[in-house]
Amino acid sequence: MIAKTPQPPYYAVIFTSVRTSIDDGYAAMSNRMMKLASEQEGFLGVESSCNDLSITVSYWTDLDAIKNWREQVDHTFARRLGREKWYQAFKTRIAIVERDSQFEK
Amino acid sequence: MIAKTPQPPYYAVIFTSVRTSIDDGYAAMSNRMMKLASEQEGFLGVESSCNDLSITVSYWTDLDAIKNWREQVDHTFARRLGREKWYQAFKTRIAIVERDSQFEK
Repeated sequence: MIAKTPQPPYYAVIFTSVRTSIDDGYAAMSNRMMKLASEQEGFLGVESSCNDLSITVSYWTDLDAIKNWREQVDHTFARRLGREKWYQAFKTRIAIVERDSQFEK
Repeated sequence: MIAKTPQPPYYAVIFTSVRTSIDDGYAAMSNRMMKLASEQEGFLGVESSCNDLSITVSYWTDLDAIKNWREQVDHTFARRLGREKWYQAFKTRIAIVERDSQFEK
């Protein structure tokens, strides 16, 4: 689903990752984190897609909301498991969305 | 592949799309546009992933580079075909990447 975000400006966290071959609980944790993120204050939406490369873009009102989500206890635990088991490599980019446009048939 | 981008700040164009069921030349055009984008001045990298939702994030030095790529003749033609044939819906967000971090095993 394309996230229904408000008028810019708002923040985007672009999380790009390459998985290891270890599956062990990844899907369940990923679903849990998506749900948990959506309950955080300042959460605006999320978009996710994966094949060889996995890209998840989450949208947030401000940097405090991003920091709070980063430090949320269960998320911190999930991030540690991610580094230990699930991710070969990842990159996180924090960006301010300045403008957007859309198209729908 | 995770794009090897320089130190922030730089720009990200987050292009999220939902495809129609029409395939007709999509993959070839997509590959051609990836190659062409990478030859543009100011291009820094691109990341792409698709299943139900397709996310492509391209990285650029500045807004002029993004504008030039948007107006590049072949790209303009491809964008028109995209609206006519390939995309049910899409959203484009232009953002300034302020910080990043990475992990590699």
